[in-house]
Amino acid sequence: MKELTKREEDYSKWYNDLVVKAGLAENSAVRGCMVIKPYGYAIWEKMQSILDGKFKETGVQNAYFPLFIPKSFFSREASHVEGFAKECAVVTHYRLKNDPNGAGVVVDPEAKLEEELIVRPTSETIIWNTYKNWITSWRDLPIICNQWANVVRWEMRTRLFLRTAEFLWQEGHTAHSTREEALEEANKMVHVYADFVENYMSLPVVIGRKSDSERFAGAEETFTIEALMQDGKALQSGTSHFLAQNFAKAFDVKFTDKDGKLDYVWATSWGVSTRLMGALIMAHSDNNGLVLPPNLAPIQVVLIPIYKGEEQLANTVAELDKIAEGLRAKGISVKVDDRDNVRSGFKFSEWEFKGVPVRVVMGQRDIENGTVEIARRDTFEKVHIERTGVENYIENLLDAIQKSIFNKALDFREKMITKVDTYEEFKKVLDEKGGFIFAHWDGTPETEAKIKEETKATIRCIPLYMEKEEGKCMVTGKPSHQRVLFARAY
Amino acid sequence: MKELTKREEDYSKWYNDLVVKAGLAENSAVRGCMVIKPYGYAIWEKMQSILDGKFKETGVQNAYFPLFIPKSFFSREASHVEGFAKECAVVTHYRLKNDPNGAGVVVDPEAKLEEELIVRPTSETIIWNTYKNWITSWRDLPIICNQWANVVRWEMRTRLFLRTAEFLWQEGHTAHSTREEALEEANKMVHVYADFVENYMSLPVVIGRKSDSERFAGAEETFTIEALMQDGKALQSGTSHFLAQNFAKAFDVKFTDKDGKLDYVWATSWGVSTRLMGALIMAHSDNNGLVLPPNLAPIQVVLIPIYKGEEQLANTVAELDKIAEGLRAKGISVKVDDRDNVRSGFKFSEWEFKGVPVRVVMGQRDIENGTVEIARRDTFEKVHIERTGVENYIENLLDAIQKSIFNKALDFREKMITKVDTYEEFKKVLDEKGGFIFAHWDGTPETEAKIKEETKATIRCIPLYMEKEEGKCMVTGKPSHQRVLFARAY
Repeated sequence: MKELTKREEDYSKWYNDLVVKAGLAENSAVRGCMVIKPYGYAIWEKMQSILDGKFKETGVQNAYFPLFIPKSFFSREASHVEGFAKECAVVTHYRLKNDPNGAGVVVDPEAKLEEELIVRPTSETIIWNTYKNWITSWRDLPIICNQWANVVRWEMRTRLFLRTAEFLWQEGHTAHSTREEALEEANKMVHVYADFVENYMSLPVVIGRKSDSERFAGAEETFTIEALMQDGKALQSGTSHFLAQNFAKAFDVKFTDKDGKLDYVWATSWGVSTRLMGALIMAHSDNNGLVLPPNLAPIQVVLIPIYKGEEQLANTVAELDKIAEGLRAKGISVKVDDRDNVRSGFKFSEWEFKGVPVRVVMGQRDIENGTVEIARRDTFEKVHIERTGVENYIENLLDAIQKSIFNKALDFREKMITKVDTYEEFKKVLDEKGGFIFAHWDGTPETEAKIKEETKATIRCIPLYMEKEEGKCMVTGKPSHQRVLFARAY
Repeated sequence: MKELTKREEDYSKWYNDLVVKAGLAENSAVRGCMVIKPYGYAIWEKMQSILDGKFKETGVQNAYFPLFIPKSFFSREASHVEGFAKECAVVTHYRLKNDPNGAGVVVDPEAKLEEELIVRPTSETIIWNTYKNWITSWRDLPIICNQWANVVRWEMRTRLFLRTAEFLWQEGHTAHSTREEALEEANKMVHVYADFVENYMSLPVVIGRKSDSERFAGAEETFTIEALMQDGKALQSGTSHFLAQNFAKAFDVKFTDKDGKLDYVWATSWGVSTRLMGALIMAHSDNNGLVLPPNLAPIQVVLIPIYKGEEQLANTVAELDKIAEGLRAKGISVKVDDRDNVRSGFKFSEWEFKGVPVRVVMGQRDIENGTVEIARRDTFEKVHIERTGVENYIENLLDAIQKSIFNKALDFREKMITKVDTYEEFKKVLDEKGGFIFAHWDGTPETEAKIKEETKATIRCIPLYMEKEEGKCMVTGKPSHQRVLFARAY
């Protein structure tokens, strides 16, 4: 079967092997850009469809804005240009021509753009330039738009799904008439993300606010969800920004309020990306391959016949087809693997590698006895049960697996959370155990920068749901009112 | 209400007005790139969802390939570079920096790419470069992938939806072990498109093959569906290409067949785009605004109360809510317009403008009599019917409207098809009547080019389903075995 680097030997290589060999994605001929293969894309489509439904329940409408952004737009919001415009793909020309020297095609120097176009790294600027024409009065608000799109950030060191030059994401951009309403929207969306990651990706998250220095370029507040990977590193899985009036001011977007007074519009933006695929893969998988939560598995149940000869194959597949039909009627996605050119053992490990949550096996004795064998991917547990009622059994089992994967990840995270009170201890835990560390911090960017430089750990967030606790900054000894979440991160 | 240029006065301006004022799309700050607004995007999402389902029924899997294509890839397939690589967005740099003279940000000359990247105008080249690594044996075939993506073609004269620099589309790319299988796939997909356009967009099409000079750059056969717009011009609405072994040869993609023999892989590609939005709008709408077929309308039924005072409003809306609930239970999308800050007449024309197929109105006499008024957008017919059973009535009405819009478009097209036998008559019909013209042609590119140059009409297709008929080319008098479809086109 497929060779997979052991997780404990080289976590990074294990991850890359897994992504490639499970057929999720691969590197392309273009530096930093990945090809998302059908099996990987099927998982992303499930993520999209679930998130899109949740967005729409909160009143979101989808729209589409241009891929290109005029270079000058980036200069309008001062901190935004620092954060985004630097490492980006720049379109300078709009035509190629045949090389007069016969060397294929070359850029036509006469087709130079007057103003360069940037391939969007995020769309605040082009969208707020558009909203300017949509908004005059409070009656035009709120605007709650989202787009599913590709974006490009010229990353130097890339890793499939986690950090690629081009990636797929959704970006919501909303406009409001009050500060409170915009803050509430930003807060609401980070909770939509948390709900999705916990209940569909089976991955517990810490919801919090970013510190000043980790905030989105142009935001007044960034909410984040932080998940823990199996190697003890954190992965930021989604962010939601309260942009105050920064972009409205940069693009001069004003509205008349109910009292006839002119004011700048309040904004939010929020996004999750194909990075979630990385989180999903890293969080649950093992040395046998992917482990997928049933809610996101493209194939939830695989049915495999054990047989000798064509007649047994046909009979067994006929029985499995009946079960498959019953499962499909329950909305469960299934595959009957009736291939006769590979051995059953090959099928077992192939589907195991691909993370199919439940395997149903039927051999000749099963047919005689009216039984089937059911195996779970997450725990490898197997049971022999009666054929009758197997559809209900599997339906319940899928629910149980979904919860069980979550609980396993939660147990792991709880074990990997450490409260420390001294900087010495902090460094020791980081190096020897890793994981999430809750510690007191004096709230200054200077201390934060010092910690980052000395330990490579960053403040992942200031948790929303954590009791206040008086204490002293582990570095400076200055007073602190709440522990914050530190970790080394992806 | 909204001012709309009359269709008969200036068809082109009528179209543009309609797109903008109905909130479907608008031009952006980036030349040639449009913003697709929520109402327009909601229609596109319905198109996507229906097409995606149809594709998957035929075995298609979705995937995602890079936005950028190395420039050299375009030189590999000789006719492809002529067709596509010329007018395109070229990425030459990957970084901006602060202008040392303080004029915002400028392109960093040190961040020049070794090889320029082209923003994909279509993805055959990058995909066949990828397939090379996926295919070694007949067992790896067929590959039937599709991607939903944005593409860029640097068009000089752009029109919302019909011709834009950036547009959204799907592109299917398939790989097969035999010529016959690939040809069958290309043929199958053009029929999927025809089914969609006729049964969801209510728009009849002629299915045919393109002449040599109108074929896709790199194809051996291009199948097309051609629809007729209300101004008598044709609109190519979808194409499916049999690429033979051209791309396999260009990217050296070979496979071992069942007999152990090496051969190049056979290919197809096929796509439809946001251009379909243009076809939908142009084909059915009138001087009162959009006319949308129920199968694609984001809102299928709008319910409007006629009332005086708050109490009547509340009571009437309560009744309408009951009907709305019954309709939703049937999977019908509805909106109860309970706004109290605009008059009913305003609501009527607003929803008419937006093309909502059915309007339900309830006034005080209706409440007393247990009746409602139902109005059709397509014919403006109104009926007063019993409140009881109105949900079933509307469900049937939506079906009837769907068919009726199709039949109206079909009647129009039939009237606008002319058979001509002389070139004189051909030119006269083109100038005085327009529409589709069936005429004999000698099959040579020279005659085709002469006709195009002299009349601006092109061969839209050589119809698949049209009886053979011996005749003489209207221009050269040479023998012809079948009439072909001519028209001026978008």
